[in-house]
Amino acid sequence: MKQPPQQQMIHEDQLDYSEEPVRALSNFEVHCQQPFNAEPYLPLLINAGNITPSDIFFKRNHGPIPNISYDHHQLFVGFQHSPQNKIDNGHVEWKSLSMSDIMTLWPKITITASLQCAGNRRDGLAALKEVKGVIWKAGTISNARWSGVRLRDVLKDVMHIPEDLVHDMVRDFHVAFEAEGHVLEDVCYGSSIPLRKAMDPLGDVILAYEMNDEPLSRDHGFPLRVIVPGYIGARSVKYLQKIIIQPQESEAYYQQKDYKILPPWVDHTNVEDSWDAVSSLGEMNVQCVICTPTEQEDISPDIPLTIKGYAISGGGRGVYRVEISIDGGETWEAVKMEQKPERKSGMFWSWALWEKTVSRIIKPTEIIARAYDSSGNIQPETPIWNYRGVMNNAWFRVHVVPMHSNIRTRL
Amino acid sequence: MKQPPQQQMIHEDQLDYSEEPVRALSNFEVHCQQPFNAEPYLPLLINAGNITPSDIFFKRNHGPIPNISYDHHQLFVGFQHSPQNKIDNGHVEWKSLSMSDIMTLWPKITITASLQCAGNRRDGLAALKEVKGVIWKAGTISNARWSGVRLRDVLKDVMHIPEDLVHDMVRDFHVAFEAEGHVLEDVCYGSSIPLRKAMDPLGDVILAYEMNDEPLSRDHGFPLRVIVPGYIGARSVKYLQKIIIQPQESEAYYQQKDYKILPPWVDHTNVEDSWDAVSSLGEMNVQCVICTPTEQEDISPDIPLTIKGYAISGGGRGVYRVEISIDGGETWEAVKMEQKPERKSGMFWSWALWEKTVSRIIKPTEIIARAYDSSGNIQPETPIWNYRGVMNNAWFRVHVVPMHSNIRTRL
Repeated sequence: MKQPPQQQMIHEDQLDYSEEPVRALSNFEVHCQQPFNAEPYLPLLINAGNITPSDIFFKRNHGPIPNISYDHHQLFVGFQHSPQNKIDNGHVEWKSLSMSDIMTLWPKITITASLQCAGNRRDGLAALKEVKGVIWKAGTISNARWSGVRLRDVLKDVMHIPEDLVHDMVRDFHVAFEAEGHVLEDVCYGSSIPLRKAMDPLGDVILAYEMNDEPLSRDHGFPLRVIVPGYIGARSVKYLQKIIIQPQESEAYYQQKDYKILPPWVDHTNVEDSWDAVSSLGEMNVQCVICTPTEQEDISPDIPLTIKGYAISGGGRGVYRVEISIDGGETWEAVKMEQKPERKSGMFWSWALWEKTVSRIIKPTEIIARAYDSSGNIQPETPIWNYRGVMNNAWFRVHVVPMHSNIRTRL
Repeated sequence: MKQPPQQQMIHEDQLDYSEEPVRALSNFEVHCQQPFNAEPYLPLLINAGNITPSDIFFKRNHGPIPNISYDHHQLFVGFQHSPQNKIDNGHVEWKSLSMSDIMTLWPKITITASLQCAGNRRDGLAALKEVKGVIWKAGTISNARWSGVRLRDVLKDVMHIPEDLVHDMVRDFHVAFEAEGHVLEDVCYGSSIPLRKAMDPLGDVILAYEMNDEPLSRDHGFPLRVIVPGYIGARSVKYLQKIIIQPQESEAYYQQKDYKILPPWVDHTNVEDSWDAVSSLGEMNVQCVICTPTEQEDISPDIPLTIKGYAISGGGRGVYRVEISIDGGETWEAVKMEQKPERKSGMFWSWALWEKTVSRIIKPTEIIARAYDSSGNIQPETPIWNYRGVMNNAWFRVHVVPMHSNIRTRL
C-alpha cells in the first residue's frame, strides 16, 4: 500500500519562493509578495461580470506555490475510524489516485461558485483595533466555473461507505484536506468540513481540476483543489494531496487557530487561551459590497450615477434583497439584482451582482448598501471587532464627493 | 379514488368559535381571543427549561380550532406534475391515509425542535411605525419533543418517487400543506416548503401526532401537524389534511401575502403591488432574547443578578456564541450556554438556553444580549422596520432599575 509523503514543518526563512509563477499584476493590489496575496481592484472585479477571469481572481496563499507534476501527483484518500487511532501514515488505511484516475473514473461535473476569503473586508475591523492577518479590502471574492468530480462519488467509491452508514456518521465525522507544499504556520495547509456537507447530494462539493474551462493555474491550485461552495474560501484547499474521513475536525492551524470569530474581549494578550472555546467557521454570512464608485471618488454632479456591487450569502442561501441609500441611511431604494442558482441543485453558490442608477448627486454623501439573505439574516449597521478580523459584513459605506465641472476644469 | 373535501372561504362573521378548547390562561398574555393568540410570559417560558410544557407553549391561530375526529380524519396526499395542471381535486391524483395508517405504516420518529413565529418580537417593529399583525412580544417561541413519521418516508412510499427523480426535482418542486378548518384570510390555512427540505435525510421534517409524548392538543394541531425544524413556525401546518407535491410554491395567503420581509419603503399604501416581488420566508434568522429580568423590572443592587434567555438560528445552524452587556453595549461578556443537536442528524433544531450571573448592578442600565450563529451571521444593533413586522432580530435590550433596600422598604 502506498503511503503519502511525510511533510515536515520548516522555518519561515527556509520557505523557497524561487519557483513562483509569473504573474501579471496590473489588476491587483498586492498586500504581500511572499506568500503572494493580492486582490483585484473593485471596479475591475465588478466590470468583469458574473464569471471572474483568472487574471482578476484574488490570490490567497500561506506559502510558496508548490511546483507539482501532473503526471506524478498522487491524491491519497484515507479513513480513520476512531479518534483513538491518531492520524499518521501508519494508522490510516490509504488508497491513492493519480490525476488520470480522477479524470477518468468519475463523470466530469461543472459548478459555478464564488469563493470568498473569511478575511474579506478585514480593513474595516483593522480600522477599529489591531487585528492579525492580511489587511484585505473587499476584493477577496470572485466567481468561477469549476470542473472536476464530486467528492461524494470519490468517497463512496474509494471508501465503500454505504449510504446508511453515511447517515449514521454525519453527526460526528469530518472530511479533512491536506495540501502539498510548505506554509508559514504549520506542516502543510490543512482544513476540514463536516462529512454531512461532503456527502450532501445537493452540497456540490467537488475536486476541481479546471477553472473557467482551463486547467487550474498554479496560483489557483494546480493540479487539483477542493471547491466547497457556500463555505469560506479557506475550506477549498488547493494543491490537494490528502483527504481523510475522520471522527474530528482537522487539527491544522487553519482549522483551529484561524478562521474563528473570537469574542471582542480577546486580543493578542489573551488569544492563546481562547482558541479551543470558539468553533471553526464553515458557511459564509450575508455580505454586500459596493464596487463602484469607490471611496472618495470624485463624481460628476451633472449626470446620473450608476452604483454597482455584489452580494452573497453562505450555505446555498440566496440573496433575498439588496437595498441602497444615497443619503447616509435616511431612505432606501431597490436595486436591479441577478443571482443564478446552480443548475441542478438550485442552491445559490454564486454571488448576486446588482446595480442601481441614481439621479444626480449634488453634495458629498455616504452611499450605503445592505443585503438580506433568504433566511432573513441582515448585515449589522457597524462592524463588531474580532482579533482575527474575519467575517466582517457590516453595511458597506462609500463616501463620494461631487465635483462640479468648473472646479474640475480648473484642476 | 377518494377526493379531499372541497373547502369554501367564509366571511369573518361566520367563523364559528363555539367549539374552542378549554384553556388555562394564567401563563399567557392573550393578544386575541378569536382567533386565539397568546404567548407565555418570558420568565415562565425560560424557567420551564429546555422542553416547554404544553401549558406554556405559545398558541398561534388564524381561525377557530377545528374539532377533528381521530377515527375519521383522512390525510390526502397528491402529486401535481406540471404547473399547467392547476391544482384542484379533479387534476391531482390523490391517495388518502387514515391516522391509523400513518401510525402503523412508518416507524415512529421523535425529534426535538423549537417553533418560532416569524412575528416574534413584532412589538419592536410596531414601535417604529404601524405594522400589520398580532403585536407579539418575544414569547412566540417554544421547544418540544415531536413524535410522528418522516415526511420523506411518506412521500417516497405513497408517491413512489425514486431517489434519482427527487434529485432532479429538488430545484423546482415544493411540498404544499393544507389544514382542515376555516380561517380569516383564505379558504384554509396553507403553506409550502421546498421539496429539497422535505426530502433531505437530515432535514428531519415529520408529520407529528405527539407533542412531549402525548397526543397533540387541539391548540397544537390535533390530530396531525407538520413539523419543519429550522423554519419559521408558519410552515409547520396544524390540522393537516392535504399534502401536495407541486411545481410551484403554495398559493395560499400565508405563503404569498404574509411572512415576507417587505422593503422598508412599502407600507399599507402600496403593499398590494409589492407581494409578488418579494420571496417567501423559510429558514429562521439568528435570534437572541433576554427572558429575565424583564423590562423595567426593579432589581436589588445588593446581590448578584442572574440574566437568562434563549438564542436560536434557522436551517439547523447552531448558536455560535451569545454575548451580554450590562453597560448598554460598551463592554461584553461571555455567557454559559447549552444547545443540544438533534441526536442523529446533528442539526441544531432546538434553541440554546443561556444564563449569566453578573455582579451587583447599582445604577439604572440597559442590559443587551446578542448572538452569532454558526454561519457568522450576527444580529443588527437596531431593528429595520417592515410592514408585516416579521423576523425582527435586533439586539435585545432590557432596561433595569436597581431599587435600594431603603427605598423598597419605604414602598
